[in-house]
Amino acid sequence: MTSPLGAPDASKAPRYAGLSTFARLPRIEDVPTTDIAIVGVPFDSGVSYRPGARFGPEHVRASSRLLRPYNPAQDFAGWDAVQVADAGDIAANPYDLAEAVDQIYEGIHELRARTKRVITVGGDHTIAYPSLKEVSERHGPVAVLHFDAHLDTWDTYFGQPLTHGTPFRRASEDGFIDKTASMHVGIRGPLYGKEDLEDDNRLGFAIVTSEYIEEEGVAAAIDRVRERIGDKPLYISVDIDILDPAHAPGTGTPEAGGLTSRELLRMLRALTDLNIVGADVVEVAPAYDHAQITGVAAAHVVYELMTAMAQGLVRDNEV
Amino acid sequence: MTSPLGAPDASKAPRYAGLSTFARLPRIEDVPTTDIAIVGVPFDSGVSYRPGARFGPEHVRASSRLLRPYNPAQDFAGWDAVQVADAGDIAANPYDLAEAVDQIYEGIHELRARTKRVITVGGDHTIAYPSLKEVSERHGPVAVLHFDAHLDTWDTYFGQPLTHGTPFRRASEDGFIDKTASMHVGIRGPLYGKEDLEDDNRLGFAIVTSEYIEEEGVAAAIDRVRERIGDKPLYISVDIDILDPAHAPGTGTPEAGGLTSRELLRMLRALTDLNIVGADVVEVAPAYDHAQITGVAAAHVVYELMTAMAQGLVRDNEV
Amino acid sequence: MTSPLGAPDASKAPRYAGLSTFARLPRIEDVPTTDIAIVGVPFDSGVSYRPGARFGPEHVRASSRLLRPYNPAQDFAGWDAVQVADAGDIAANPYDLAEAVDQIYEGIHELRARTKRVITVGGDHTIAYPSLKEVSERHGPVAVLHFDAHLDTWDTYFGQPLTHGTPFRRASEDGFIDKTASMHVGIRGPLYGKEDLEDDNRLGFAIVTSEYIEEEGVAAAIDRVRERIGDKPLYISVDIDILDPAHAPGTGTPEAGGLTSRELLRMLRALTDLNIVGADVVEVAPAYDHAQITGVAAAHVVYELMTAMAQGLVRDNEV
Amino acid sequence: MTSPLGAPDASKAPRYAGLSTFARLPRIEDVPTTDIAIVGVPFDSGVSYRPGARFGPEHVRASSRLLRPYNPAQDFAGWDAVQVADAGDIAANPYDLAEAVDQIYEGIHELRARTKRVITVGGDHTIAYPSLKEVSERHGPVAVLHFDAHLDTWDTYFGQPLTHGTPFRRASEDGFIDKTASMHVGIRGPLYGKEDLEDDNRLGFAIVTSEYIEEEGVAAAIDRVRERIGDKPLYISVDIDILDPAHAPGTGTPEAGGLTSRELLRMLRALTDLNIVGADVVEVAPAYDHAQITGVAAAHVVYELMTAMAQGLVRDNEV
Amino acid sequence: MTSPLGAPDASKAPRYAGLSTFARLPRIEDVPTTDIAIVGVPFDSGVSYRPGARFGPEHVRASSRLLRPYNPAQDFAGWDAVQVADAGDIAANPYDLAEAVDQIYEGIHELRARTKRVITVGGDHTIAYPSLKEVSERHGPVAVLHFDAHLDTWDTYFGQPLTHGTPFRRASEDGFIDKTASMHVGIRGPLYGKEDLEDDNRLGFAIVTSEYIEEEGVAAAIDRVRERIGDKPLYISVDIDILDPAHAPGTGTPEAGGLTSRELLRMLRALTDLNIVGADVVEVAPAYDHAQITGVAAAHVVYELMTAMAQGLVRDNEV
Amino acid sequence: MTSPLGAPDASKAPRYAGLSTFARLPRIEDVPTTDIAIVGVPFDSGVSYRPGARFGPEHVRASSRLLRPYNPAQDFAGWDAVQVADAGDIAANPYDLAEAVDQIYEGIHELRARTKRVITVGGDHTIAYPSLKEVSERHGPVAVLHFDAHLDTWDTYFGQPLTHGTPFRRASEDGFIDKTASMHVGIRGPLYGKEDLEDDNRLGFAIVTSEYIEEEGVAAAIDRVRERIGDKPLYISVDIDILDPAHAPGTGTPEAGGLTSRELLRMLRALTDLNIVGADVVEVAPAYDHAQITGVAAAHVVYELMTAMAQGLVRDNEV
Repeated sequence: MTSPLGAPDASKAPRYAGLSTFARLPRIEDVPTTDIAIVGVPFDSGVSYRPGARFGPEHVRASSRLLRPYNPAQDFAGWDAVQVADAGDIAANPYDLAEAVDQIYEGIHELRARTKRVITVGGDHTIAYPSLKEVSERHGPVAVLHFDAHLDTWDTYFGQPLTHGTPFRRASEDGFIDKTASMHVGIRGPLYGKEDLEDDNRLGFAIVTSEYIEEEGVAAAIDRVRERIGDKPLYISVDIDILDPAHAPGTGTPEAGGLTSRELLRMLRALTDLNIVGADVVEVAPAYDHAQITGVAAAHVVYELMTAMAQGLVRDNEV
Repeated sequence: MTSPLGAPDASKAPRYAGLSTFARLPRIEDVPTTDIAIVGVPFDSGVSYRPGARFGPEHVRASSRLLRPYNPAQDFAGWDAVQVADAGDIAANPYDLAEAVDQIYEGIHELRARTKRVITVGGDHTIAYPSLKEVSERHGPVAVLHFDAHLDTWDTYFGQPLTHGTPFRRASEDGFIDKTASMHVGIRGPLYGKEDLEDDNRLGFAIVTSEYIEEEGVAAAIDRVRERIGDKPLYISVDIDILDPAHAPGTGTPEAGGLTSRELLRMLRALTDLNIVGADVVEVAPAYDHAQITGVAAAHVVYELMTAMAQGLVRDNEV
Repeated sequence: MTSPLGAPDASKAPRYAGLSTFARLPRIEDVPTTDIAIVGVPFDSGVSYRPGARFGPEHVRASSRLLRPYNPAQDFAGWDAVQVADAGDIAANPYDLAEAVDQIYEGIHELRARTKRVITVGGDHTIAYPSLKEVSERHGPVAVLHFDAHLDTWDTYFGQPLTHGTPFRRASEDGFIDKTASMHVGIRGPLYGKEDLEDDNRLGFAIVTSEYIEEEGVAAAIDRVRERIGDKPLYISVDIDILDPAHAPGTGTPEAGGLTSRELLRMLRALTDLNIVGADVVEVAPAYDHAQITGVAAAHVVYELMTAMAQGLVRDNEV
Repeated sequence: MTSPLGAPDASKAPRYAGLSTFARLPRIEDVPTTDIAIVGVPFDSGVSYRPGARFGPEHVRASSRLLRPYNPAQDFAGWDAVQVADAGDIAANPYDLAEAVDQIYEGIHELRARTKRVITVGGDHTIAYPSLKEVSERHGPVAVLHFDAHLDTWDTYFGQPLTHGTPFRRASEDGFIDKTASMHVGIRGPLYGKEDLEDDNRLGFAIVTSEYIEEEGVAAAIDRVRERIGDKPLYISVDIDILDPAHAPGTGTPEAGGLTSRELLRMLRALTDLNIVGADVVEVAPAYDHAQITGVAAAHVVYELMTAMAQGLVRDNEV
Repeated sequence: MTSPLGAPDASKAPRYAGLSTFARLPRIEDVPTTDIAIVGVPFDSGVSYRPGARFGPEHVRASSRLLRPYNPAQDFAGWDAVQVADAGDIAANPYDLAEAVDQIYEGIHELRARTKRVITVGGDHTIAYPSLKEVSERHGPVAVLHFDAHLDTWDTYFGQPLTHGTPFRRASEDGFIDKTASMHVGIRGPLYGKEDLEDDNRLGFAIVTSEYIEEEGVAAAIDRVRERIGDKPLYISVDIDILDPAHAPGTGTPEAGGLTSRELLRMLRALTDLNIVGADVVEVAPAYDHAQITGVAAAHVVYELMTAMAQGLVRDNEV
Repeated sequence: MTSPLGAPDASKAPRYAGLSTFARLPRIEDVPTTDIAIVGVPFDSGVSYRPGARFGPEHVRASSRLLRPYNPAQDFAGWDAVQVADAGDIAANPYDLAEAVDQIYEGIHELRARTKRVITVGGDHTIAYPSLKEVSERHGPVAVLHFDAHLDTWDTYFGQPLTHGTPFRRASEDGFIDKTASMHVGIRGPLYGKEDLEDDNRLGFAIVTSEYIEEEGVAAAIDRVRERIGDKPLYISVDIDILDPAHAPGTGTPEAGGLTSRELLRMLRALTDLNIVGADVVEVAPAYDHAQITGVAAAHVVYELMTAMAQGLVRDNEV
């Protein structure tokens, strides 16, 4: 195998130069094979409050220019070890949720034919549904580790079965999720009623609330996560609003009392030996961001997920 | 008739106090009868680029607190002469364009049973379609005076017949528009092709471009408008992006080279003797606004339209 | 008793629709009786540095649209249990501090005739004085739990006895405060001199500094608070600048080194069994906010206070 | 006379270096004598809507760093010809309007003992009253040329006789103003009633509205100004809100339909041969500014006024 | 010749989707031949005040997504007629001005081997020097039409001969410029002294000031431009600060009193029959922009230049 | 000794009044002798990504107006005990890194002749090199305690030996640093490779990462710092990007996962008994700041350093 193609040498082309791909990595068209593809899904017609996540992929790319190959927190250089590439964006109909979900599914499905892993950058949380559908077709029902302020297991909204508030209910009903091993982390803020929690439980999710992390600490939360997930095939879905609005103002449904970016990165880094088969990072709404605070946090989340996936591919001799 | 109820005395309740209604006017529930209703339509699922106009009605209200009763430019005090009220917002399904359009139509229709005139505050330009439908049912095909950077007579987009780029094509096809008397003002920026202009012409619109105004001046443009419209029942639709991005950054599809707010207000004031039977102000997207530049401009546009309508009602002995 | 009237069903009217009341709750005029009233005091003539809190009530309302009835952190649904309503704003003369303080006192006094509890949303911290005056007339000297970066017990400023830096000195001198049970939490930043602390102590306040919380943790701070206050009638006053500028940029006198929103919410939730007889949330200055970071934090603080008060009313059979 | 001390050589000390004085000019303490003093009045307790002009002087200074000595539009180099200095700020009590007005008067009065001309940078428009008082004591009733969106001749507000909405009524009543030669330019936007205009006329003001300028052009407006003022001693007062919100978002009471900065500068440059004995530039509220748009416009206005005054001093052999 | 490759069909891939190239056009690597290349030069080490134009190319690309093929103001569809492509960015050493200028020259030189015309997007104005050097090698001394608030013909700054304030002096001295046919348009604001104007004249430039345009109008300015340039090979250099700060806040040395975007576009459209052999658009500094006001204006300027160049290529049978 | 001159009495001159010096302290020209000088170095030509720190000194001054004399966290009133003064800015050539470094060195050197301690406010991190050079000439190789997200010990960038990424490598090579006692705190984010860490170690630095602080806590980090530094002469260098982007958006190379301002202040306060002989605070880039979040944090850092230095001077009988 030839050496993977990484980002351009920053001591020759400054980091602010060149077209914006994720971390200045090559486009998928420009490399012969790909191990991990980062793909955007600029779609936000599933949002219920502030729209704008359709500009999320562009913003995360622009906010990722400072990333470098070696991740000291994981002691691993992802794109030196495996071929990582930017697969561009999947186009989806902004006016028709059902068609859009199909298009996203197809887009990921086709992409998977060319790559071993996909990280999807949203876009709103609706996109987790087609992503989970595609992943579960390969791996069976997957453990879902869902970082979010919200459960996203509501039923319908304005009669719509699939919006950014419902992907995990639909995914659970459709059998994409391992109900014994799925989990929300970072939940906080008001609900419609206590039955929201009961419904959620039936759908297969355990909950680590933001209050739990405040009171018991991140280490305890990590233990709970690892215990529940074990070695199941794992899909990680990060809604950037798990972060406090101070750390992620650029999102659609902000809730006070969230995590810091440092806490979130710590949790992700504690999971690198798990079997991560897919991931998404969603709900970055740039019109509400400032100085790329949210964009940089999201880019770092993608970077940690990518490094962990790359470690997994090497560990499992998949590359 | 008792005196209309206006805004609270600002020398007793400061303008920044109290719930935000348009111009601090009473809610429609709080007055016995209404002559002119200002109603919000927080809906933006028809947008093709930057979303966010769903927060438009709230923003225009918040930006309207400085308005006072007497409009010296028209030498008329609208809400001293007729009862003007804030009718709140019409709820519309954000996930289903067709249903939303029906809901908006129904909302305006019900409102019209209680008021002589309606000014609709968007929301994206999709809402002009149900508004024109309702107006044309009362007045027959109306002259449409459309202030906008864009034609909004495209055909379909992503297969959707009705979006914020198509209301005037659909309205023309459905016979809501007087094809001999309709007009776009402020058109500028690139098109898909020359046939866009030809299609538009067939649909019943004459065009005053932004370039025409730059070269020939506002007075010439006013003459052309008055000549074409004559005394036809007139519906005025103002997309705030007719203004240059300097004057209206808070909008969804900005185009350089637009009008100043002073030019737009001048044009509106030149039309107060026409027979204005309906109006909308749309495409205010607050996430992109700064210091209410766009919101204040939109609020002034609503205020000029309201004063003109009030003059008309008095002139025609409708109150 | 009939069921309380809550917020409109968000699955029929989107959360961004409708006039802005706190949490989309009914106006006090629109319900027969009220248990907890949330009232704005748009007044900032007492500020010493960045003005703008006069726009605080409007901003907190606009930032509260995402709140839902059930508060899982307190396991209680406040506005399902008692009638909560938005009482609008109390008008106060911006040019005459003394008259304004009288107007605010009268406004709260009149409001209390119609409701069992009041939460006041500022406005600057001056408003705590008339609020405490009113509360102490009913309950006698109250324990004051004051969350703030600053002591607000200075003496005079530019000769003025009552400004946003002095309400607790004046309230203490005038006997509104229980000097054995009052407390500041979150104090930090430079003072004029050590005597500021000594004065403060004489006025009846114990102090939990922000440094204490950094070093000893929130649980220790909660213990100290509960120990000092016991079961005294309690007034909670939250200056949003207790939060770090990262969590509350939109305020008038920012000090680095503050609390996170999560820490503040945790503290409030630890006090729900106390006897809360009044509360205020002050110093939200929207011109300095971004993406409603500060507004959302303040709205959540009001929400926690409201839920705790509602619990108290039910517990004490007051409803 | 020795050569005046100007700004530091920008080819040795970059323009962004050094403490912020107006145009990087010397402090009044650092030069032996002064001909024109630029003094800040950070005071905004007279505002009726958005506060924040207390930070105006600092902002205008920071926005003036790019100014250079030679003004080609006037073909004159002001601070090469006469000594211009920054006189710092006049402190005024933010809690007591009457005392503040006295302090401002005293501050300007003392300053005038050391300089031939003063340009006052606000602060809100209240400061025009003490400034006019001081000027009229030297020159008798002066022609006032007032650039503003608003008349500022209201009577009282909340019982206050002197606020930012009333300085010209009070100044007229107190005989500071030449009622045959005073004028507002740029007036626009709604009034309380037609009587506002009648009152204003009685107080001695002619009006050039913003609409007049839109329709008749700037040259016609200049003619009307010159005709009315003649060779009377002239005080120029520029409320930055004469500019459209696009050109001056950073102000307290924005009105759509204003002047461009180019039009305002043109008008000022057409008046350089008049007998300008005093001036102010007010209502810059930086919290609402962006990228110093407003600050740069205000700094250029001060610069034009200063150059014109310097020309006058040389012409009249006062230096 | 096969049909040129244009932007993706926006009715299939939304405009906010896909990697950001200029107008969503193909990368130069993705087309067999190119007629007009748009290339970024992310370099700002020549700035004297606000830096940040290094992020200009990325920002102009992101702000160009709304452009469509047919330009009605020129009645021509540029990228349907000739192949237009995005050539990415030329890397330049940010720490060494001389080396950077060489790199930029080399970058453009190599690019010209593959394309008939180049439009350079800065970056600061320093880049006009290497661009003019390259152009003059092909065409001999060129007429320079320079739109700017500033002369940019200063001599040295901090001893540096080549910065963003000096490119046209150096280019004139080095014989790149036709001294009988070059011109500045939009000049305004203070200078160091009258000799700046004299120097400038000697270097070969006539001046149309911003004041001239205010007083005489755009049509008169166009006449002067056309008269001076005639049919000389023409290089157009647009510093975005020719626009008023209201229209272009995102730039490094803002001066009040500038052009509107409409005026600038009108001037460019009046020159389409001239012999445009090269062009640049510079000084877009995104950190100071808001809602892409500046970015959109710059993108439209590039679009007009590109359309005009395309017309020229077709007219001259170069394609 | 006469009493030091402090800030003006804020109860007579409001904090927002007067020219911006650090904490409103006297200029060095205005006091007979100085113990601690705070000096700006508005220089950012060493940056590799977002420029703009040249405006850092002005911004930190403007953000420091709320500081008061008594620091309760240190129980000490710095500027009451020793004379602290603002020494203005050191001018440096923005176009020539080597010359600029010499100018900065000379500036500090000259300043040290007039003061016992200097705190340098950047500007970018390049300025640490000349500052360390000057300090080491007096004290020999110093322990460097470096708070930063980045190592800043890279070798060259674009061939440049001295940029904001390299000062500590150059300082180590040139013998300015005590290699047994130097330390980075707050390091996080991706590197080029593992060898970056090895190089860094050879240059004399131990590392406390941000992850370490997240996992082990601030107290453990303080212990490690104190143990390594002991009583060596200590230079503290604070790159504001040690803070999380939520706490310091206004900086050039933001990395998620940083410290809170409270943690950083705590660490600084734990070091007040050490022998601090010099300090800098760098990389504040105001164009990316919001509501002075970053500026206030930086001002507090300077304030803690100043108080600690003042304590040291008193303790060591240097005053």
